[in-house]
Amino acid sequence: MESRIKVIVFDVYGTLFNVYSLEQQCEKLFPGKGRELCELWRRKQLEYSFLRQLMGTYEPFYTITRNALTYSCRQLELPYNDQKIENLLDGYLHLKLYKEVEYVLKSLEDKQLAVFSNGSLDMLKPLIKESPLKDINLKVISVDEAKVYKPTPMSYQICLKQLSVNREEVLFVSSNTWDIAGAKNFGFNTAWINRQKIIFDSLGVTSDAEYTDLLGLINQNS
Amino acid sequence: MESRIKVIVFDVYGTLFNVYSLEQQCEKLFPGKGRELCELWRRKQLEYSFLRQLMGTYEPFYTITRNALTYSCRQLELPYNDQKIENLLDGYLHLKLYKEVEYVLKSLEDKQLAVFSNGSLDMLKPLIKESPLKDINLKVISVDEAKVYKPTPMSYQICLKQLSVNREEVLFVSSNTWDIAGAKNFGFNTAWINRQKIIFDSLGVTSDAEYTDLLGLINQNS
Repeated sequence: MESRIKVIVFDVYGTLFNVYSLEQQCEKLFPGKGRELCELWRRKQLEYSFLRQLMGTYEPFYTITRNALTYSCRQLELPYNDQKIENLLDGYLHLKLYKEVEYVLKSLEDKQLAVFSNGSLDMLKPLIKESPLKDINLKVISVDEAKVYKPTPMSYQICLKQLSVNREEVLFVSSNTWDIAGAKNFGFNTAWINRQKIIFDSLGVTSDAEYTDLLGLINQNS
Repeated sequence: MESRIKVIVFDVYGTLFNVYSLEQQCEKLFPGKGRELCELWRRKQLEYSFLRQLMGTYEPFYTITRNALTYSCRQLELPYNDQKIENLLDGYLHLKLYKEVEYVLKSLEDKQLAVFSNGSLDMLKPLIKESPLKDINLKVISVDEAKVYKPTPMSYQICLKQLSVNREEVLFVSSNTWDIAGAKNFGFNTAWINRQKIIFDSLGVTSDAEYTDLLGLINQNS
């Protein structure tokens, strides 16, 4: 890893934690529809964060996540109720870590480590606290501080302020192509975690590095 | 229609013209994959306009449409080449009008009529000129004038400037829920054309009226 990198900043949803680990819970509540619900929910969650940012009507990510879930249940004509919605939302506080994450983050502890997410702190803090990451020295940064979603340049600025570094001293790691594009556009060094072997979106920028999982971050030195 | 309405502004893609009329062309070039390509292309086209607006890296809609198409071909592993790409892009200049559009717009000619689109003028003008709408008095307005995509409030402002009206004098008509949300949020009166009988996105606003096609705009007075 380049020596000018002072801090490694990780995206959270899809990068460290698997949002599709909720599929089982979705399937239990709505048999036969788990996968479809889980995918539509995630797609709408992202779309709503983008659209609210564009319209200038910010709401915290927890609210957006709820709105995306109820929309998805209605669109798929599922027999939902308040209890099922709360049950699934609570799942966002107990997502599964991808299997290599704990090992990799522990291996990288000689660097300053942080997470930076569209999620609000009421979602991020419980999630991390109940995960194997709780013992790692990890600064938790949310866009909610400035109420401006990724991938706007203003959002990535929050990291610089919180971490007291320059943008070229940051390695930003995400599995989300729109997040990598935004971070690269802002001036971060970027590593794209391409877990699903997709191609990178055509947005005028590319990532500096691409790995199939976080192990790539440590293997590059070996 | 309320008498305070001085101008009716129509979105273009999906509202007047059917973007999925390209499915046949996609299918001809890539047998068995026409529908999938057509749908992914449209989804990525919208997503890229949102993301570039968020990142502050505006490119005209024609460029974005091309980028979304080549991405989609690559993602679906289709044997594309420059000629096929040009062939499909050219299709965007010859989309099919929805069947009721010409009749409805002619019935509404006592009002000022306009179209307002994320499309650039090099896409919109040929499209309209070669369609049955060419003889209708229709002002063509593009976000490209200010290089700011819908659904930002700044984009809808372009309409007011071009039409010399106040926002409450505008009836904005679109089949895209994100566009209706943005227009309503800006202060336009809105009519949502729900052609596919979907539910409205959960973005904190609703449309003032909902019709299954444009005929609703004239039938409401009968």
